[in-house]
Amino acid sequence: MSHKTNTCPDQAINPDSLIAHFADNQPLRLDSGAVLAPFQLAYQTYGTLNADKSNAILICHPLTCDQHVANPHPLTGKAGWWDNLAGAGKIIDTARYFVICSNVIGGCLGSTGPASMNPQTGKPYALDFPVITIADMVRAQAMLVDRLGIDTLFAVIGGSMGGCQVLQWASAYKERVFSAIILASGARFSAQNIAFDEIGRQAVMADPDWRDGRYIEAGTTPRKGLAVARMTAHVTYLSEKALHRKFGRNLQARPQVTFGFDADFQIESYLRHQGMTFVERFDANSYLYLTRAMDYFDLAADHGGRLAHAFSGTRTRFFVASFSSDWLFPTRESQLIVHALNAAGASVSFVEIATDKGHDAFLLDEPVLSSAMDGFLQASARAKGIPS
Amino acid sequence: MSHKTNTCPDQAINPDSLIAHFADNQPLRLDSGAVLAPFQLAYQTYGTLNADKSNAILICHPLTCDQHVANPHPLTGKAGWWDNLAGAGKIIDTARYFVICSNVIGGCLGSTGPASMNPQTGKPYALDFPVITIADMVRAQAMLVDRLGIDTLFAVIGGSMGGCQVLQWASAYKERVFSAIILASGARFSAQNIAFDEIGRQAVMADPDWRDGRYIEAGTTPRKGLAVARMTAHVTYLSEKALHRKFGRNLQARPQVTFGFDADFQIESYLRHQGMTFVERFDANSYLYLTRAMDYFDLAADHGGRLAHAFSGTRTRFFVASFSSDWLFPTRESQLIVHALNAAGASVSFVEIATDKGHDAFLLDEPVLSSAMDGFLQASARAKGIPS
Repeated sequence: MSHKTNTCPDQAINPDSLIAHFADNQPLRLDSGAVLAPFQLAYQTYGTLNADKSNAILICHPLTCDQHVANPHPLTGKAGWWDNLAGAGKIIDTARYFVICSNVIGGCLGSTGPASMNPQTGKPYALDFPVITIADMVRAQAMLVDRLGIDTLFAVIGGSMGGCQVLQWASAYKERVFSAIILASGARFSAQNIAFDEIGRQAVMADPDWRDGRYIEAGTTPRKGLAVARMTAHVTYLSEKALHRKFGRNLQARPQVTFGFDADFQIESYLRHQGMTFVERFDANSYLYLTRAMDYFDLAADHGGRLAHAFSGTRTRFFVASFSSDWLFPTRESQLIVHALNAAGASVSFVEIATDKGHDAFLLDEPVLSSAMDGFLQASARAKGIPS
Repeated sequence: MSHKTNTCPDQAINPDSLIAHFADNQPLRLDSGAVLAPFQLAYQTYGTLNADKSNAILICHPLTCDQHVANPHPLTGKAGWWDNLAGAGKIIDTARYFVICSNVIGGCLGSTGPASMNPQTGKPYALDFPVITIADMVRAQAMLVDRLGIDTLFAVIGGSMGGCQVLQWASAYKERVFSAIILASGARFSAQNIAFDEIGRQAVMADPDWRDGRYIEAGTTPRKGLAVARMTAHVTYLSEKALHRKFGRNLQARPQVTFGFDADFQIESYLRHQGMTFVERFDANSYLYLTRAMDYFDLAADHGGRLAHAFSGTRTRFFVASFSSDWLFPTRESQLIVHALNAAGASVSFVEIATDKGHDAFLLDEPVLSSAMDGFLQASARAKGIPS
């Protein structure tokens, strides 16, 4: 394990994270059959690993978040994306647990991804980067956890794409996951989810500044295409009701519509802002690869079409939560997971949180979620014998 | 009224429709304060106007349809968009009624729109075309109905954006509308609807071939941007369940995923096809203008914030239908209309059709809708004294 800051020119974006380098003799074997070597994962840790290494929690980040769970983001200066839940004295208590979060493989904040240098060409990978899967992300994380000398994770926690990784962890590494928390997620991506992902990819690839993926060498950025992709995805993260409550048909600070194509409505300027700020912190090709990994995720299909088979023999304790107004991962997707876990004889707690905040509710302050997660983690810690 | 075929060079797209020209002395006065003159409407008629001119039905088309309700489309060769409902012996019976449908003002199939020649410059209007509203569309239609010598329309019928026009007709021309059918529509566009419209517009305007709207003179077409806009809108026309039923996670004709960015899933190739075919028959600037008109639609706001006031004193008979899986115009939007009509003392029938086909259900064969519409039209015809 290397604790030096990342100084690779192609990864200079993230000087603050720890970097785990994996050399040519430690390749990442991908589902596609391709092999990625060398590679690196950028990660953050919070708290201290205890003597018997029993207090490690791995957080798996959703699509457009990263390893900066509980510290200010190095690019935006904003608080960590799960600052409300993770930190000293918080529910994911960094005074009690050793919390790890790594930027996923294929990501753009220090881990090897399509913006990284391809050692075979000396240029950025771009679309020569191999297509990755959720299982590949998890395989890389397992190598990091090995590197950290941790055998069993006390908990693996994630929402949305992070929840997919948690499911994959619990299926592929049954003995290494004591407890698992899956929020606003599913064991597969639906046709509608794939549709929105594909719209985002087409928007990026339609931008001539994308340059068939070679925009770094060209010195361009497919800003407009990536912004449209982000706008589209962002609408799916919110509920119709939340949009109505936050924006309704409210106009910008003007008495009436302008009869033009400027942003008359607050929802328009909000979305434009979301699009514009996203391109400052995210790589367009990473967006293609990570959405593709999500599309491909179908845990049941990987187990002969029966989701319960993915969890055969599990002894992991599961906590699953959905949000009533989430239309990206509706409650029924969580219920499918719960039914499969029940069929596999697993211990599982399930809660549907009544909220109008939509998919993004898992990132926000939801008191019912917080107390349910807290109860689950406390009980799991007692069962594991972690001192409070 | 001119029955000559349209030979204006800027309108050569549509040689088959009737054209009503309105000269400089018959201007269209727009909500924005702008005046459009001269202008023209392209329209189709089916059947024969009876002697007392009591059997005229006006159909108002949705966003991406046009005047070709019940005849093969001149560009695509496909059957008319409401061929299942309109025709001889069908529910909108062209053997009994005189059916009119005009391309909306701002459209691109023969009516004056942003692709038309601006007489002041000799070039296409592009973004110099004035921003129009639903009320403007209806005002132009009323001038066409005047031109046809029809005082009262037996029925005004429309779905989605067409339904908005029907509501506007019933509000602005109370004495001229005997019966009104509003399908899958609403009296306003929600924040979510505006959000998806804005994404579509941003996708078009992000395309460098859009050329700030002057793509006709530049000899380009913003194909990629308009295709992304269409893909986005198309997803909103279908229900999650319909997508799941039609496509699920089915792969194209290949045994497994390709680990690439080609269309692996059927839903991807379906959406790409929808995008590509749309650009062959629709003008990108028209798309901007018509979505803007929809965003601006808020019939209650036009009447002091009380929707019932829009219908004060009405004697029109109303039929309102929603579709249970329509998430673009959910049933509650129809219910708001029905409540307002009730408050205004109007005669109104309302039906929510149980279907998983989503918003587009109003264009499809829905037996419950067909028989309910049939019953309503038959009863209205008896009340109006139209011979069967």
